[in-house]
Amino acid sequence: MCAAFDNHLVRVGACQVSLAVGKVGENRSAGLDAALRAADAGARIIVLPELTPPGYVFESAAEARALAEPADGPSVTEWADLAARRHLVIVAGFGELGADGQVYNSSVLADPSGVRAVYRKAHLWDAESDFFVPGSEPPPVVDTEFGRIAMMICYDVEFPEWVRRPALAGADLLAVPTNWPADPVPPGERPNVVTNVQTAAFANRMFIAAACRVGEERGVSWVGGSLIAGPDGYPLAGPAGPSDPEVLVADCDLARARDKATSPRNDPHRDRRPALYA
Amino acid sequence: MCAAFDNHLVRVGACQVSLAVGKVGENRSAGLDAALRAADAGARIIVLPELTPPGYVFESAAEARALAEPADGPSVTEWADLAARRHLVIVAGFGELGADGQVYNSSVLADPSGVRAVYRKAHLWDAESDFFVPGSEPPPVVDTEFGRIAMMICYDVEFPEWVRRPALAGADLLAVPTNWPADPVPPGERPNVVTNVQTAAFANRMFIAAACRVGEERGVSWVGGSLIAGPDGYPLAGPAGPSDPEVLVADCDLARARDKATSPRNDPHRDRRPALYA
Repeated sequence: MCAAFDNHLVRVGACQVSLAVGKVGENRSAGLDAALRAADAGARIIVLPELTPPGYVFESAAEARALAEPADGPSVTEWADLAARRHLVIVAGFGELGADGQVYNSSVLADPSGVRAVYRKAHLWDAESDFFVPGSEPPPVVDTEFGRIAMMICYDVEFPEWVRRPALAGADLLAVPTNWPADPVPPGERPNVVTNVQTAAFANRMFIAAACRVGEERGVSWVGGSLIAGPDGYPLAGPAGPSDPEVLVADCDLARARDKATSPRNDPHRDRRPALYA
Repeated sequence: MCAAFDNHLVRVGACQVSLAVGKVGENRSAGLDAALRAADAGARIIVLPELTPPGYVFESAAEARALAEPADGPSVTEWADLAARRHLVIVAGFGELGADGQVYNSSVLADPSGVRAVYRKAHLWDAESDFFVPGSEPPPVVDTEFGRIAMMICYDVEFPEWVRRPALAGADLLAVPTNWPADPVPPGERPNVVTNVQTAAFANRMFIAAACRVGEERGVSWVGGSLIAGPDGYPLAGPAGPSDPEVLVADCDLARARDKATSPRNDPHRDRRPALYA
């Protein structure tokens, strides 16, 4: 426990937004409106979905490229402006046209001082590998005034080894912009991608805020399921349903993520035995 | 997919048993009765709880040692005899007095041919480190006539890196003898240790059968929560409640664990990027 960080309560928002591929202007507006509603509800850390401006179900690499923008492009600039104007941290997904000419499935973290970090999705899902180059850099952990915040994108969070990296590096909150395509869910069950987020929080005693999208797109529908999970793995807000936009907020005492004790003798990070895992 | 293993349906049983520390004879009888009920219900692979013969809440290292037995001791012999007589695979937890004089929290896998493997818990929970020496060998993956079966014990399964080892080594089913001490669970939620098992199955597209115990012991009560999870992470049987003994059975097509495809392009094992995880 870090004494200076004790009782550090911050309201976190996860914005489930309706998006449509190619409708960049409308998607940006929808994302901005949702972020403003979260801010109006008192959220200081706000998460928007994966690929918010371009949408997801691309028909070609050319389409994905045409809808991408540089990391200092209009969407990121708009989010950074909002973060400065309303004193927020915003994490949001976008299609990134890299300085190297490659197209990435990326997310940005902006705070009142501007863009703090860009992360490129390292584990690509299905046809994404036709449209994007995978990143190869670990999720950054950004020390903000609200706490240490990391980010990864959608399928990334299904790799517990990948979640461990920012967790071991001290992340209090993992922000996960996501687009979870719908799979059949047995009656009475929570989608497995949702319980996966809960377990990723539980395994690392950190908070996770995942923001998914809705809005059928070229025959694909979505899990929705946006949620904010606490360090014991239970949802503090959500999971949202599969159909409607929703702005979730939850008060998170991020200091709880700095006390990993789960029993008088246990701590899931200290108890790891990495020499045995190779 | 292994063609020779296609449509390999086997009934799996997870036995939630009421145990009491120190009552070795009664505990063995309770475990045996539950295993027989599972066998009568058609189960061919049967899982019993962690530390079935001795119980769990020891008062001293001397007590834990006095209740331990060698890996060819009476409990293991009884389980192996049952496996031979009824043509079963049995996985069960016991207190092991090692040939090295150390005491381990172990589990055994017996099949009709006898004892196939013993595993020693590698991640000890709370006061266990006063009573047991942790193991340092990876969970064995035993090729049985019913499929490839691995085992680990209780807290072990909360380390996704540890679950990966037998999963990557080809386990179809992970058997988890467990004693989950009860923690508060928010209303309407499944215990986090249960969703953790679901996620461990989901992350590796394998089956997991976890058998917990009930029966308050020296002021400690238990989650129960025994379950059999399929490779998509959803329960096929359970989770059981916190109070009563229960014999769960589920028909598992273990061949499903050999087809890791989750999309036309994805496989959660092949998609790992180990070079990035160090």
